[in-house]
Order: sequence, then structure tokens, then C-alpha cells
Amino acid sequence: MHGRMMTKALTVSSLIAHSARYHGTGEVVSVETAGGVERTNWRAIEANARRLASALERLGIGQTERCATLAWNNRRHLEIYFGVAGAGMVCHTINPRLFSEQLIYIMNHAEDRVLFLDRTFLPVVAALRPRLETVRHFVLMEPRDDEAAAAFDGLRFYDELLGEGAESYEWPDLDENAPSNLCYTSGTTGHPKGVEYTHRTTVLHTLGSNQPDGIGLSARDTVLAVVPMFHVNAWGVPYIAAAVGAKLVLPGPNPDGEALIGLIDAEKVTLALGVPTIWMGLLSALERTGSRIESLKRTVVGGSALPKVMIPAFRDGYGVDLVHAWGMTETSPLGTMNQLLQRHDAMSVRERQRIREGQGRPPYGVELRIVDDAGAVLAEDGKTQGRLQIRGHWVIDSYFKAGESALTDDGWFDTGDVATIDPDGYMVVRDRAKDIIKSGGEWISTVELEDIAMTHPAIASAAAIAARHPEWDERPVLIAVRRPGSAVSEQEILDHFTGKVARWQEPDAVVFVDQLPLGGTGKVLKTKLREDYGGILL
Amino acid sequence: MHGRMMTKALTVSSLIAHSARYHGTGEVVSVETAGGVERTNWRAIEANARRLASALERLGIGQTERCATLAWNNRRHLEIYFGVAGAGMVCHTINPRLFSEQLIYIMNHAEDRVLFLDRTFLPVVAALRPRLETVRHFVLMEPRDDEAAAAFDGLRFYDELLGEGAESYEWPDLDENAPSNLCYTSGTTGHPKGVEYTHRTTVLHTLGSNQPDGIGLSARDTVLAVVPMFHVNAWGVPYIAAAVGAKLVLPGPNPDGEALIGLIDAEKVTLALGVPTIWMGLLSALERTGSRIESLKRTVVGGSALPKVMIPAFRDGYGVDLVHAWGMTETSPLGTMNQLLQRHDAMSVRERQRIREGQGRPPYGVELRIVDDAGAVLAEDGKTQGRLQIRGHWVIDSYFKAGESALTDDGWFDTGDVATIDPDGYMVVRDRAKDIIKSGGEWISTVELEDIAMTHPAIASAAAIAARHPEWDERPVLIAVRRPGSAVSEQEILDHFTGKVARWQEPDAVVFVDQLPLGGTGKVLKTKLREDYGGILL
Repeated sequence: MHGRMMTKALTVSSLIAHSARYHGTGEVVSVETAGGVERTNWRAIEANARRLASALERLGIGQTERCATLAWNNRRHLEIYFGVAGAGMVCHTINPRLFSEQLIYIMNHAEDRVLFLDRTFLPVVAALRPRLETVRHFVLMEPRDDEAAAAFDGLRFYDELLGEGAESYEWPDLDENAPSNLCYTSGTTGHPKGVEYTHRTTVLHTLGSNQPDGIGLSARDTVLAVVPMFHVNAWGVPYIAAAVGAKLVLPGPNPDGEALIGLIDAEKVTLALGVPTIWMGLLSALERTGSRIESLKRTVVGGSALPKVMIPAFRDGYGVDLVHAWGMTETSPLGTMNQLLQRHDAMSVRERQRIREGQGRPPYGVELRIVDDAGAVLAEDGKTQGRLQIRGHWVIDSYFKAGESALTDDGWFDTGDVATIDPDGYMVVRDRAKDIIKSGGEWISTVELEDIAMTHPAIASAAAIAARHPEWDERPVLIAVRRPGSAVSEQEILDHFTGKVARWQEPDAVVFVDQLPLGGTGKVLKTKLREDYGGILL
Repeated sequence: MHGRMMTKALTVSSLIAHSARYHGTGEVVSVETAGGVERTNWRAIEANARRLASALERLGIGQTERCATLAWNNRRHLEIYFGVAGAGMVCHTINPRLFSEQLIYIMNHAEDRVLFLDRTFLPVVAALRPRLETVRHFVLMEPRDDEAAAAFDGLRFYDELLGEGAESYEWPDLDENAPSNLCYTSGTTGHPKGVEYTHRTTVLHTLGSNQPDGIGLSARDTVLAVVPMFHVNAWGVPYIAAAVGAKLVLPGPNPDGEALIGLIDAEKVTLALGVPTIWMGLLSALERTGSRIESLKRTVVGGSALPKVMIPAFRDGYGVDLVHAWGMTETSPLGTMNQLLQRHDAMSVRERQRIREGQGRPPYGVELRIVDDAGAVLAEDGKTQGRLQIRGHWVIDSYFKAGESALTDDGWFDTGDVATIDPDGYMVVRDRAKDIIKSGGEWISTVELEDIAMTHPAIASAAAIAARHPEWDERPVLIAVRRPGSAVSEQEILDHFTGKVARWQEPDAVVFVDQLPLGGTGKVLKTKLREDYGGILL
């Protein structure tokens, strides 16, 4: 027996349609790959998205077939987001920083029919083309360019393709559980795996992540999406901005510190989102340029561990509130955001900062828990470390084309992180589960050891790993790169840990190397380090 | 072909479960019907809601059966909201201000199985009891009271009932399209009609109405719900406060100006919601008491037309931002809220105020349109008046037990209002469709005429109605009540309109009466006035 209310599908097209209707003149500012800034608005974005949808249908692309992008953050990419999903196809955003073999694997595995690409990626796509088994149409995200056309047989041009679409196209009715977009996540081992979002999960994530304690965008905000649109849907910002009518600034191919300062000041950006590296670059550029970035009220930072200096640097230097967030490709991405509770007002600035350095609390829509290796649920006391698991309205069920569930028997997704959770739900990521060091039954966080190592002036970079040990199963070993000119000794580095962690958590050894091995997304390959150095204590 | 994400039902229990888990220590402050203030928190509210759900199951109440309330805003009412719906039953909130015949009709029509009541309503329920055909259990929302038990045969007591519930009760899995709550709306003619919300619409309304441009509550807010819990779910505030962990203040049976000031100051309320009458009382009490209500940042005002003086009175007198909202029982209720756009920053305070006096724009989730009497869609130019229609994720499809749809053939709900909509979507209610005066093909707003009449110092109250006219079909006539001691003449009142509206919009006559006829919810009965005075121009 059902209630008697309208049941309207939660669709991606409903977000952009709302935007065109109610925030049509709201601006979208796009730094173009070819250089220069283009200014458009939500009404024009939606009109182009409909034309694109129509053109793709005329090309014969079927419902739920994948159209891929290799592109920066710009307005055509935004139109593709909405046009492809709105038509009932699946928008597959690809991380162009992956290795060639991974790119080939991903496009063949996704069975991409169309590949939209920015000019930056024309050479790599030309080289990969013979091995792409399913792509029928390559579309350069530009007006026609005869030189490019001559160099790449059959190349199509985005602006011409739009011209083939009908202006009168209307968004089709879709099942809200149909897929809307696809994003691959690459671990350090094995093939990348695809996460296929649905219209429903995308809309619920939009509403759930934009609550005031979340991303919190209004029609009066100007949001700068530095987080790439190929990285978990730019954290959902394009959808949120469309839903609420925020002015959206897309920074194009080179979002370095100076460029971002220029955009923030010129466009009066109020909220910016990105990974810590971006903000470290911004802070350093601010010192050089002397800009006060006065319009900026908040930054949302996630994607990797937050340097401790960053919260006070933004707060005290520029009056900007830094909000720490955590999520994954498998979680759409918002898992937690770090805002304070009422009673924290009574705390000192320092205590509040300590809370805000953690990853924060889940919004309504997702739940967290920590479990031990046997799957037993652990206490949320802020101290007990366990494998972090999540479930909720925008969390994965199974990977694209995978036969089996990605979940535990009782329906939770294991994040692969080790974390603590306190009684208010504040979560702190301690380590990756595969990296954490299990020494005599206790878990030692490699992240914590690396943070301490990095405070030594002679260390340029460092990674802590588990080395096998005859008595304790595993013991910590630090792999470190000295700063140029430094001749710091192993003992000096070991001494540096004294008093900063418990005695049994200190590394047993330090190995100096010239550089740390990095994976395709710039992360340290700890698997490689464990292969090379995991046996040195035996 | 479906995507591969978790599909979790959107349920009312998921809201309160989130609250208990992640904002368990967040406060709920309740002014009790018996007097005094009770302080509890979200964890305790949820625990009691589960006990209540268990106790109701043990009483034999089945899924989707109705449990009704006749109650003020207090914590037991809050527990009933969540306990009843969480168990899969339907929480039916009844407006105690209705006439006895309406109360009887509603309870019999809803087939209520249980009636929860505050002590205030014990006499009326005792009197109505012989005519209530379906209610099996009457539950006084108090601890046991022997005197009440002796006076009312079989009376149960809420606190005892809770004791019969299992603490270990777990929320059942429910279909998100199952009904969760029921609210009757009473027109000026015919029987009241029930709107039965679903779990899905309740959760989507919670997320959609709490965006930053909407109600915008965070865990750092303290919200005072003056709007009654028997009036469209207190505009959804109990659900929102649970989802985000805001401190919730429930003002009990007598929310007069002084009482509200006391609560705002004592509990440091940041946001308060209610109808204009409440805020007029508050403003006048503020003048008497001299309180500065310093914690209060925003008020959300809706439910009837906003006196023009109110926005500047709050803004200039107390630094409080008044946000005008519009909605109906049939729309959960949020239809529009009035926040400004970025480009309005360039306007003068006066221009901005003029925009904010209107009802505002729809959030993502609902759409508006205006149509003429033939159903043709009209221009959204800010001038053209038409019948206001709405559709969206939390809008009615058909009334409770009604065989036919409540919608137009093309799926919109006709609100019965006449409105203008401007190109940004800002909507202004001009009149009720049944009240508006259709004179020579033009529509004249009775609301506008009444507003002008009320600015005359000799007028205590006034209603404009359509009187039948041989040449113009209808012409405006003003029915007015003079202030005590005034002997103002008809011509003086007619002259008062000169220059304030177009000549053809001025009333043709003024009829002085001793008082205006009022309906059960305090609204002027214009049907009665048209019966009595609709023929005076013939």
C-alpha cells in the first residue's frame, strides 16, 4: 500500500533543467585549454547539453552506452557531464594522468563508444588509437581545426557535433536507478576498477552533500572547482552548482597557485575545493604575490592527508575557513566533512583545530563503522583503530562488470583505510589497511611515522613500511630521501622519534634512498618498497 | 540495466537513527503542557521512539494504520512523529483548532486506531469520544495520573506505554513509497482532505528544503519551531533537525511573545520558524521587554501574507534576517523560499526588500508554473497573473482515500492561488483563485485591496470580495470593520484608494460590518461574505 504523493525520478537531467529554469543567468566561467576565459551561463550550458544529447542519439549511441572524456575542467566538459547522462548514456571521465596501458585497459573495459578529448591529449590518443577496440568517434572539444583534422583521420569537433543536435530536444524520462556516470579507481595493484553511479545516487549525493554542514553552496556563492572533473565527478560540485545556481568557475588545464589567485580575485570566488597539494601551492603563491584573496570564505580540502600547517595558515593569514573532507571514488565521494558542534564553542582554538584536522563526521546518508580483521565491530571511542567501513545512499554495491558484490557479507563497503571514530562520529584516518604495521598484535600507523619524519629538517620525503620480523611479525622501517646536501645519519633520524610516539612504535631502521617510487596518480608505491625492503630485519 | 550502487530506502527511521548515532548528545528542549521545561537529547528521543514503536506493535497496530495526535510542540510529540512512522504506521497530526464536527470527521475518515493527546484536549476528546468510530486507544501524553484515569474510562498514559515497549526494538526495513504521515487540510467548503506523505517524500523534503538557500540548519544551530507540529509536520523542522543534529526547542502550548523571547534568550536560538501573527506578537513583546534577542540570526515566516513592516522591523531593530517562505499541506510544505541572487547585491536596500517581500523561488525538487483559466501556460514576466501550479518530489498525487487524482491532466497540482512569477522564478501570491475579482476580463487582487484598506487608520479589519455586476461580470466591494469609536464614511474609504491602484481596480462600494466571519483556522470566510454581499451591485 503506497502513499499518494508524486513519484518523480531523481535524474541528472532534472538538476540541469532546474538550473536552466531558475538560475539561467547564473554564470559559468571557463578557462579554456587553448587559453583565454570564456563566460557563459547555466541556461546556455543546458541548451548545449540538450543539443549534445540529441547529436549523440543521432550518432546511434544507445542508452547506458559509455561516452568517455579526457579533459580538463572547462565548460564543454560540463556540458558533456549533463548531456551524456541526461540522454541516458553514461559519462565516463578518465584520469589522463594514468599510464598508457591503464588508459587502454579502461577504455576497452568500459567499451567506450565516444571519446571527447581536450587538445592536450590529442597526441596520446593518436598513439593509443590502434589499441582502442570500441571507440567509434573521437571528438576534439573545440571548433573545427583543419590542421588537427588532417593529422587525425576521422576526428570530429565538439562545436560541429553540437550543430548536428536538435535545439528542441527534450530530456527523456529515465529510471532513476539507471547508470549515469562511470569513474575508474586505480589501486597500486591489479587493473583499475569502475564505479558506475546511478541517477538516483548522483541526485541524493547532491542534496546530501550540500547541507550547511557539508559543501553548503547557495545561489550567492561563487565556487572554484579545482578538483579535476575526471576525479570522482569533481566531488559532485558540478551537480550541486547546477541545483542551487551557484556561479561556477572551471580553472582549465593549469590550475597553479598564481592562476588560482587570479581567478579567485577576478571572479570573487567564495568557496574553492581541491587536494592539499593545490592549496600548498596557493599558499606559497600568496606569499609571493601579496594577494589577500578577500572574497574567499572557505576551502574544502580532501583527497589525501592534510598538512597540519594548513588550517592555521588559511585562518590566520587570510580569514579562510578550511574544511577537511574525506571520501572515495566508491562513495561518490562524500563520506565525511569536518564541521564543529555547538559545544565545541567552549573549547580553545587549539582544541578545535585538533578536531578539525581529522576527517570529520558523516552527513545524513552515509554511516561508518570500524571493525577488526575478523569483522567484529569495534568501539567508537576515538582511540580504537579498525578497518573503516561505510554504507549509505551513494555507496558502491559492485564494481562495473564485476560478477560479485564489493561488500561485506552484512552489506558494508570496506574502504581499505584504518581509522578511529569518536563518540560524536568524528573519524580520523590512521593509515591504509594494507600499509599499517601489525607489530605484536598492535597496529602502528605509517602515516603518523611519516608525519614525524617530515618534521626533521634534513628529510625531503619519507615512507614508513612494515618489515617482516621473526619475533613481532612486523616492525616499522622508514625509507627516507635526504634533502640535497644533507648527510643526516640513521641514528639522528631514529633519535628524532624519541618522545613523539610510544617506544614500541618507533622505527627499527632507516634506509636512505635517492627517490621514492611513485604510481600513476603520484602516490608512493609502498608495495614496491615492501618488496625491496620488507626483508631487511630478517 | 541498473547501476551498481547500494539502494537503501529513504525512510523516516533513517533520519532519527542518524541523529541518535551522530548527534546523540544534541539537545532537545521541550516546554511541557503541564508547565516547566524538560531537557533531553536526540539519543533519548530515538530510544523512546523505538520503545513506542515496539509498544504500538504489541498493541496490535498494523503497518500503515493511523495513530493520531492532538498535541502541542513538545518532546513526546517528537517521539511519536518518529516512533509511529519508524514502525511503518502513519502519524496523523490533527489541528486541535478545528470545529468538533471536523475533528470527528477527520478521525473517522482516517480510521485512527490510537489517539495521543495532550491534557489540554482531554475535555474535548471526552466529549467527542462517543462519535469516534475507530479509535481503540486513547493515550494521554503524560505519566500516569489517577485523577485523569478515573475521569476517562480506559485512558492510557504515554510513559506507561513506553514501558511496555522493548528497548532492543530495531527499526524495520520499509518500502520508501509506503505512507509515513498524514495531515488534513481544511478548505472553507466541503470536508477536510487528507495528504498522506511517504517516507521517500519526507526524506527528500528534508534534504531538499535544508539546502543553504532553504531552511539551512547545521549542527551548530538552535532552532525554535513555533510553527505547530500539527501544521504540515511543523514545516519539516523535526526531520531536518534530526538529520543535521541541530538543537531543537519546542515551545509547548503557549508560544506568546514573552514566552518566545524567554526561550530565544535562554536557549540561544539562532533560527525560529512560524506564521506572521507569531512574529507580530514577538515584535510587540520585544518593545515591551527590551530584549535584544541577540542569538537570533534568522526567522522563516510563512503560512499567510507577510506584513510589509516585518522585514525592516527585524532587520533594523534586531539584526535578524527574515526569510519569507510559501508552501501548502499538499507540498510537504516547502514550495518557495525567498533568498537573493548574487546580482541583487548591486541593488538598493529598498529594491532588495521589495524582492524579499514576495514568496521567493522554488528549491531543486519542485517546479512552478502559472496558467490561465483554460490551462494555457502563461509568461513568467513578473506581471502576468495566473493560477499557480506545482509539481515535484514532495507534492501530492491524490488525497487520502480519494479515487481520483488531485492533479491536472498533465500532472501538476493546482494550488488554488493566483500568482506572478518573474524570469528568475521569484513568485508572488496575488490572491486565492476563488477570491480574485474578474472584472471585464482583468484580474483584481483582493489581497492588494485589503492591504490598502488596512493602512487607513480608521479600519480595524477588511475583506475585499467579488460582487456580481451586470456590465463587468464582477466588481470589487470592500467589507470593513471600523476601529472602535470611528465613524469613518464609505466615501472617505473609497477616496483612500485613489492613486494607490489603477482607477478600474478601486472598490465600487464599502460595507461596514461589526465583525468578519472567521473559519476554524482563523481565516476570513469569504464564501460567507459573497453569499451575504455578492448581490449588492445588481
